[in-house]
Amino acid sequence: MLKRSLMTPGPTDIPPDVLLEAAQPSMHHRTPQFSAILAKASKGLKEIFQTRGPVLTLFSSGTGGMEAAVANLVLPGEKILVASIGNFGERWGKIAAAYGAQVEKLYYAWGQAVKPAEVDKRLRANKDIKLVFTQHNETSTGVCNDIQALAKVAHKHGALLVVDAISSMGVIPYFTDKWGVDVTISGSQKGFMIPPGLAFIHLSSRAWQRVKRKKQAGNHGYFYFDLTAARDKLKDPKSPTSPWTPSVSLVRQLKVAVDMVVGEGMEALWARHHRLAEAMRAAVKALKLEFFAVANRSDAITSVKVPKGIDGAALVKKFRDEWGVTIAGGQGDLKGKIFRIGHMGYAEEKDIIQAVGVLELILKEMGYKFTLGVGVTAVLKSFAKK
Amino acid sequence: MLKRSLMTPGPTDIPPDVLLEAAQPSMHHRTPQFSAILAKASKGLKEIFQTRGPVLTLFSSGTGGMEAAVANLVLPGEKILVASIGNFGERWGKIAAAYGAQVEKLYYAWGQAVKPAEVDKRLRANKDIKLVFTQHNETSTGVCNDIQALAKVAHKHGALLVVDAISSMGVIPYFTDKWGVDVTISGSQKGFMIPPGLAFIHLSSRAWQRVKRKKQAGNHGYFYFDLTAARDKLKDPKSPTSPWTPSVSLVRQLKVAVDMVVGEGMEALWARHHRLAEAMRAAVKALKLEFFAVANRSDAITSVKVPKGIDGAALVKKFRDEWGVTIAGGQGDLKGKIFRIGHMGYAEEKDIIQAVGVLELILKEMGYKFTLGVGVTAVLKSFAKK
Repeated sequence: MLKRSLMTPGPTDIPPDVLLEAAQPSMHHRTPQFSAILAKASKGLKEIFQTRGPVLTLFSSGTGGMEAAVANLVLPGEKILVASIGNFGERWGKIAAAYGAQVEKLYYAWGQAVKPAEVDKRLRANKDIKLVFTQHNETSTGVCNDIQALAKVAHKHGALLVVDAISSMGVIPYFTDKWGVDVTISGSQKGFMIPPGLAFIHLSSRAWQRVKRKKQAGNHGYFYFDLTAARDKLKDPKSPTSPWTPSVSLVRQLKVAVDMVVGEGMEALWARHHRLAEAMRAAVKALKLEFFAVANRSDAITSVKVPKGIDGAALVKKFRDEWGVTIAGGQGDLKGKIFRIGHMGYAEEKDIIQAVGVLELILKEMGYKFTLGVGVTAVLKSFAKK
Repeated sequence: MLKRSLMTPGPTDIPPDVLLEAAQPSMHHRTPQFSAILAKASKGLKEIFQTRGPVLTLFSSGTGGMEAAVANLVLPGEKILVASIGNFGERWGKIAAAYGAQVEKLYYAWGQAVKPAEVDKRLRANKDIKLVFTQHNETSTGVCNDIQALAKVAHKHGALLVVDAISSMGVIPYFTDKWGVDVTISGSQKGFMIPPGLAFIHLSSRAWQRVKRKKQAGNHGYFYFDLTAARDKLKDPKSPTSPWTPSVSLVRQLKVAVDMVVGEGMEALWARHHRLAEAMRAAVKALKLEFFAVANRSDAITSVKVPKGIDGAALVKKFRDEWGVTIAGGQGDLKGKIFRIGHMGYAEEKDIIQAVGVLELILKEMGYKFTLGVGVTAVLKSFAKK
């Protein structure tokens, strides 16, 4: 017997009602029944994105949503700026390069945050750059960028800001309209608490102008990720739908999950995630572990350096195979050097207590020196404060 | 109370074990557990595709799989041949045009099949065409093309054949290796009996050569649908996986469904679908209705002209809303003029008996003249013959 839970930066655990929705009999997608579900889910997405504009659902992972932004916005040979602080930031650069863009790289060491003043400088030096790509929460490092400041800087130079908010939406405060973000992308398996397979995207009216310009030029080099087609099919007042066959079961789950998120309320939901992250950070400090993120530690995940003398891969494996709790290791060069504990989506106080308890037991077994109980005590103190 | 079933050309009904698999708690995708599931599902896909080569799973609808073929194979400005017999054939033309290809069109009236001799003639007249795109079963019309003959013709001219087998794979006999098909695409919500959201693709070694050539040229204009990346990640012997986050719940359902399909055996499965289609066709004849497909009637779906004086849209609606059986109407210009009954996937003899029974009751109510019972009697006679 082993109770299993996911405390990774996505996929996250899924609430039972959302799981059971996937076990409902098949439904055809060209029916009033499905249109009603898609319409309700799309309405909830607007609340979660904090926007009045439509949020489109794409039938792909988050990476497909990122590609949709590049495919629909970037002109061939165009110079763009990628402000990267980790693995997913670098993915922006790779996608744009695959589309023939000239990528101006403002790449930070992993663990750092983007400095808006440096984006400003880079845009001043490259007046031809009209698109800036970055992350809100960088999943590989647990660092959060200041999107409001970055939007301001981009707009000052007449550029649009494109943000991957895949692991932050529905977790950390994000205001699409208030901040004036031009393109925002998210995915289903993080704050949305449903299985992977859906991406969400919102575009500002400025961004739609650009999409129109590229599309009119013809030979645009995309089809499945055609955002104009997706928008036109969704806004059909008679029967909102999607241009291609939608992932029906995932959309049904989305509707149930979005109802839960909106029902909790965005302020309460953000506060919950902050509470969990604060407790996790208190435990890390009490255990005298070292944070990997040196700036803007995210409320979505906590990244921690593996202590000297401890086998990082073995630690992650023990969590999963001996204790039933799946956490994440490091990506790329960080493999074995950090571990990442997600506290997003269907996560609450009890999950932090147990995860820190397990962490202590594993660290003790692996020879790390500390007083057993200081981690969970710090967690309890953090929660007792409220 | 209304028992609901789908008899559309996809999505199809889903077996209970496959439905329940989606209600299993979340699983992380970078784990030995998920790799084992993906490996088993991929092995079954080879059996269903009748190939020794790898079958890749993409996380999109079937249209995404079609785009993957175009994106990875077609060079910018290249002339290609599309042999179309319906809505999905024309989609090949649209995708290729979006990628800047010159589309040579061999478009037949809907209801017809591709004539291999005419493809031969077209390729003789256009020696620069090295890619031919077509459908196995054209979902919009219920006509099946002779893929074996088309592969022979394409190869005679040194061209590759790319086949959309989305609604035929696991339904109608298809032999990827024996016929030498170069690219074969399918999707999850038809013969595979799982919800929409997955596409499958197989490439011959000749097709892989072409993919390599395009990729080496750089700026290739795709990322999410990078077939080379998908192949390399899947063949990793240590832990087969996918380059981007996979749709975990759908892959788990795929594994269960593929076990069922392979367990039935391909010969038995094809024979079952033939038996169902024969009974449906016997009913259409007995009811003196007119087939829409004038050539190669498919064993996947039966398309029927709406009799004069009957409202086609109302007929489809009555099926769904009054009788709980969802069938499909016509697409494009055929809206209201035909109806299509799918008999694929999780479908058996009893489903045909009830669907024809419902059809008779609706036709009678709508004023079509016939002797009540002749349809179901023809169905029973067809089944009794075996």
